Amino acid sequence: MIDVYSWPTSNDNKVHIMREECRYRLGRDWIAHPIDIDAGDQFTPEFLKISPHNKIPAIVDPNGPDGKPISRFESGAILLYLASKTGKFLPEDTRGKYEVLQWLMFQMGGLGPMLGQNHHCRLYAPEKIECAINRYTNEAKCIYGVLDGQLKENPYIAGKTYSIAGIAIYPWTRNWKNQGIDINEYSHFKRWFEKIGARPAVKRGCEVLTALRKPLHDDKAREQLFGSTQYRKRK
Amino acid sequence: MIDVYSWPTSNDNKVHIMREECRYRLGRDWIAHPIDIDAGDQFTPEFLKISPHNKIPAIVDPNGPDGKPISRFESGAILLYLASKTGKFLPEDTRGKYEVLQWLMFQMGGLGPMLGQNHHCRLYAPEKIECAINRYTNEAKCIYGVLDGQLKENPYIAGKTYSIAGIAIYPWTRNWKNQGIDINEYSHFKRWFEKIGARPAVKRGCEVLTALRKPLHDDKAREQLFGSTQYRKRK
Repeated sequence: MIDVYSWPTSNDNKVHIMREECRYRLGRDWIAHPIDIDAGDQFTPEFLKISPHNKIPAIVDPNGPDGKPISRFESGAILLYLASKTGKFLPEDTRGKYEVLQWLMFQMGGLGPMLGQNHHCRLYAPEKIECAINRYTNEAKCIYGVLDGQLKENPYIAGKTYSIAGIAIYPWTRNWKNQGIDINEYSHFKRWFEKIGARPAVKRGCEVLTALRKPLHDDKAREQLFGSTQYRKRK
Repeated sequence: MIDVYSWPTSNDNKVHIMREECRYRLGRDWIAHPIDIDAGDQFTPEFLKISPHNKIPAIVDPNGPDGKPISRFESGAILLYLASKTGKFLPEDTRGKYEVLQWLMFQMGGLGPMLGQNHHCRLYAPEKIECAINRYTNEAKCIYGVLDGQLKENPYIAGKTYSIAGIAIYPWTRNWKNQGIDINEYSHFKRWFEKIGARPAVKRGCEVLTALRKPLHDDKAREQLFGSTQYRKRK
């Protein structure tokens, strides 16, 4: 039974979608540890042992590759680990595998961070700064354009089959309305988006822990997430 | 002979360090295609075919896994591809491999994007916005703290050996002075930083194409990099 430390955010959704997609190989049972990032759970010494950058999600697999427990942080690394463990959603042939890895890296290094800054500027930052909002809205448009171009030529993000690249990208794009994006301008992307969103495992994965989420950040939560306490020294 | 499309930036340095570290397996010959991002070379149709997100670096290996040419974008995916091709700097045992992957993802998804925003706010943005500078300076301090903690316990970033995780991280930290960081506050990191920087292949990799770099961005370059033309639609 894998322990999953998470909160209902896009990066966490990836892990829960993967877990749901692989439930027949991983088992239906798993242990959910809510890490309430509004309350500062990400800074406890216990969690920092698993995830030294105080980021969710993280997992502990009691049955690691050598039979001993293994912990993993960074959602992209967790997806690769679970793909390796289950043999699912990462092609075995080298060409197919590196096609997926390239788009997974595009999500990890480009799409996720830029849409994350977009969310910050548009939704959460105490000051609304126009040039920052413009910068990250334009970054979002560029990213959706790239996805649309890729999906014009391919049924799935990394080619012919559903993969961890799509599992990584989908949750970040669910919030397109808040990112200054009109999905109708990206018809190939929209076709993919609706197809992926209709998968039962994707629906279940995106629902995990959502009942715990609070609709608005209060002052204390804002301080944990965006104020000085987020940068506590951990030497 | 691998074709490398690059410009002297941190993400490009990664690929050239890896290539230099593996020159006995990859061969000393390679073809350098400078992609002058100040001049807009990243938007040519030829380059966009290789790298649809108009990002450097990218490679074309004429001798791909099935004997046919293969192109790759995203520096993290290129490092994984070259590690697989050469059998170097990514451990074969699953535990060691996923330790490296986790820190590679930390670089791709956290360290790179946050230090990139730090550089943008502190060095390049037309407006200097204090809350943005503070945000990304604090992000940098957090990241160096995480690296310092990891290197307190381990000789290298991902454990006992030099790996593509370190190759990915080193170039981004060469600019610590411009990131609002005092390296002397991170003694374990500093020890590692100096050790990696002394490797001949690292020195050579970081020098590639530097003669072409211009010291300051002019107005046209600023427009290509940060103005509206950077978001050209590519449908």
